[in-house]
Amino acid sequence: MNSNEENIILPEPTLRRLPWYLAYVEILRAQGIETISSTQISRALSVDASQIAKDLSFLNVKGKTRIGYEVCSLVDALSDFLGFSRCHKAYVIGCGSLGKALIRDSGLSNYGLEIVAGFDVNDAVVARTDLGVPIYQMERIYEVMSENPASIGIITVPPECAQECADLAISSGIRAIWNFSPYRVKVAEGVVMANTSIYAHLALIFNRLDALENRHKF
Amino acid sequence: MNSNEENIILPEPTLRRLPWYLAYVEILRAQGIETISSTQISRALSVDASQIAKDLSFLNVKGKTRIGYEVCSLVDALSDFLGFSRCHKAYVIGCGSLGKALIRDSGLSNYGLEIVAGFDVNDAVVARTDLGVPIYQMERIYEVMSENPASIGIITVPPECAQECADLAISSGIRAIWNFSPYRVKVAEGVVMANTSIYAHLALIFNRLDALENRHKF
Repeated sequence: MNSNEENIILPEPTLRRLPWYLAYVEILRAQGIETISSTQISRALSVDASQIAKDLSFLNVKGKTRIGYEVCSLVDALSDFLGFSRCHKAYVIGCGSLGKALIRDSGLSNYGLEIVAGFDVNDAVVARTDLGVPIYQMERIYEVMSENPASIGIITVPPECAQECADLAISSGIRAIWNFSPYRVKVAEGVVMANTSIYAHLALIFNRLDALENRHKF
Repeated sequence: MNSNEENIILPEPTLRRLPWYLAYVEILRAQGIETISSTQISRALSVDASQIAKDLSFLNVKGKTRIGYEVCSLVDALSDFLGFSRCHKAYVIGCGSLGKALIRDSGLSNYGLEIVAGFDVNDAVVARTDLGVPIYQMERIYEVMSENPASIGIITVPPECAQECADLAISSGIRAIWNFSPYRVKVAEGVVMANTSIYAHLALIFNRLDALENRHKF
């Protein structure tokens, strides 16, 4: 029984910070460190200590005065709470270079994401048997859903197909869309939507680099 | 001469939206559509029309009353402005599954990112010649920087090495860190920092899915 089962919709900034804490305490655990205070986490990650205490208050884990949190319990509590220790099945829709990369990225399964199938419109890709999961023609998604269901659809198709593929995935039973395409996919209420905006991050980096360069010119 | 050369530090929300507009007008261009109004973009992307006009006002592109923007000019202006039509050299630091995936992802070069080298600590990975770019031992970064310099360091190492690798990259001359690791990497002022928080997005998806499921239970 973990706190997520109590149906807490966490604020996005908290969900952004909790994985930082997890990554940090996992390192401490590997180093054999047994306890950590929110002040120490604060110094290491440059997050306000009171913010850390507030974020961690969502979890069923309590720090002790002048000792802090037990590292091992905190790793387990964070990992459970974030859903990383349960298996969530996903389809990759669009097996181009990024889609294939995500299928091959063994790291994701350590964080609770199990990719069970890929979909593509290209026969040459569909014929591949070396990716570790079966790749199907896009229109077979209904059939695959009844045999090997998944709840998450990872959209890695070209932007002009992103909305159509998301709609098809949702109509087959997918309940969360993780969009890696630069197209702004829209979903009905009740469908979970997350965007990983690689291109927006590139734009940010280029813009800030240009500003730096121009600053150096004058 | 483009607007970035005038040294505008764009707000992050604008930098998140501009790639949506670009992806959308690229689709229109492929369909042979010649003009588009901000009202039409607004309907397609569910972004307020006045927000779109405001975002586009950063660019040297003007819409015409009752006609709107010329699609081809808007594609070029957005692509230029976002830096996607210039080449920015990058190193991938950590050539595990995600790092290799980014090296292989030919899509990134269409957006102005040219990965020119990879770095790793694993001899078996360093020996590989099939990835399209040379892979070097991490400590050779100074030498590689003088022969084939890059400004962006893409961090795809395990969390416990992320800070150390970023520090090394910066000391070799890297001026922007694109961090894909769940560790919260810190950089000095004057170094550009962007996080692509895959794990935070996973946590968001899992949390919202759990909330949906619990809602359906009652």
